[in-house]
Amino acid sequence: MFTDRLRTLQRLKQTVLCVGLDPDPARLPRPLRRESNPATAIRTFLKQIIDATRHVACAYKFNLAFFEALGRDGWSVLEATLQHIPDDALTIADGKRGDIGSSARFYARAVFELLPFDACTVSPYMGRDAVAPFLAYKERATFVLTRTSNPSAPDFQDRRCDNEPLYLAVARTAARWHQELPGTVGLVVGATDPYALAAVHLACPGLPLLIPGVGAQGGAIAPILQVARRSPVLVNSSRQILYASNRDDFAEAAARAAETLRNQLKEACPS
Amino acid sequence: MFTDRLRTLQRLKQTVLCVGLDPDPARLPRPLRRESNPATAIRTFLKQIIDATRHVACAYKFNLAFFEALGRDGWSVLEATLQHIPDDALTIADGKRGDIGSSARFYARAVFELLPFDACTVSPYMGRDAVAPFLAYKERATFVLTRTSNPSAPDFQDRRCDNEPLYLAVARTAARWHQELPGTVGLVVGATDPYALAAVHLACPGLPLLIPGVGAQGGAIAPILQVARRSPVLVNSSRQILYASNRDDFAEAAARAAETLRNQLKEACPS
Repeated sequence: MFTDRLRTLQRLKQTVLCVGLDPDPARLPRPLRRESNPATAIRTFLKQIIDATRHVACAYKFNLAFFEALGRDGWSVLEATLQHIPDDALTIADGKRGDIGSSARFYARAVFELLPFDACTVSPYMGRDAVAPFLAYKERATFVLTRTSNPSAPDFQDRRCDNEPLYLAVARTAARWHQELPGTVGLVVGATDPYALAAVHLACPGLPLLIPGVGAQGGAIAPILQVARRSPVLVNSSRQILYASNRDDFAEAAARAAETLRNQLKEACPS
Repeated sequence: MFTDRLRTLQRLKQTVLCVGLDPDPARLPRPLRRESNPATAIRTFLKQIIDATRHVACAYKFNLAFFEALGRDGWSVLEATLQHIPDDALTIADGKRGDIGSSARFYARAVFELLPFDACTVSPYMGRDAVAPFLAYKERATFVLTRTSNPSAPDFQDRRCDNEPLYLAVARTAARWHQELPGTVGLVVGATDPYALAAVHLACPGLPLLIPGVGAQGGAIAPILQVARRSPVLVNSSRQILYASNRDDFAEAAARAAETLRNQLKEACPS
């Protein structure tokens, strides 16, 4: 089961850090920008980032947007990067897909069969049948967007539905799916709104939380440490690590940024 | 502007039919299943479907899930199929993407720059900044999921938020984006719930509607004809056309299915 593997790795490596891979060709370190093919440059970049952070990462989150934007080379860069992930780290396909059941099956097949990701993210807007094909993979985990970390998250997620914000209705519904298919469901909840983080955690204690929004997006660490007492957490940082330096020392700088965050989060590790 | 081009084509060809391309390798016509490479079989299949339906289609909707599930061949099949679309039909990338602004920019780049789609679909769950990067392409259209056609659509879309269903809150919000950036925003609303179709139309008269759910999903035609009096509509059918026959006559059967639906919808055309 995904959560068991996650907890074992977190205990072993003493880290809850997930390194987010959002490779933007325009933000690559200067030495790599000399490479004429952006796909090759990104491949090299990500390998070096992975090598530099593997000792402090329990997971890597691949942001599919950035691979899709590489066009015909995207798939092979994704495949090669995925193969480069060490055995003692889990992988998350962050695509936020959501479509009717007959289409969702194909999205699930892409991330769980063609590419052997351990987990993925999905959007809840279309309801249960858009998520169910992912949950059919019992050894994988599907993280449902609940309260996201972007500035416009309140537009719909904070609307009051039946006396609670929509994001809590989503969290409670996902928790019911989790009861039916234990171990397959997690929630995405941003660190940028500590109130929402606490509310989701209190409504669904024990559900694994994928927490973006620390670092570049400004989320705080302390509330995460409290939540981690009862729920498995995966704390993601992307840009703060990837783009810690744009010079020759980018890998060392990424390692330092990852180590710092990992140490700040050490209390969140299972003992 | 997308809507102007759409109305011109619809007037010229007297059709509001959008043919949905959801190529499932397991459902290909028998003669094509002999081909050992599924990507080649799908390429051939889609070309023949397009040739057979182009006289009655004003648009083609590419369901990205099915191309993604082709793995490394997916992109080239997508590209080749897109190139095969005739000049007198528009193209829609149906990917239902939705991510924070910095990621959404890359999804938008993939469908509007690398692949020159005329329109796409997006999920509203993450709010305005997840949609804005798509709206920056002023000659393209972005269709926001509002009330979808799948059985689980009510799970969240029908929840009452501030005294109206969430899908109407989404529709009204998208209509405001449309006021700021005229011509760039449309709504996805399924034919399967005629009440929701009417409610969205009444709340946002004049906004282009992409309407799935007729055919295999059972949506009715009559409410669409009423809506079409004030709003541009694009009525999508996928499986009913693609899989009209699984024998040698699949292209002729697809043509007949498309012609029948086009004729049922004729009253919806601009004059």
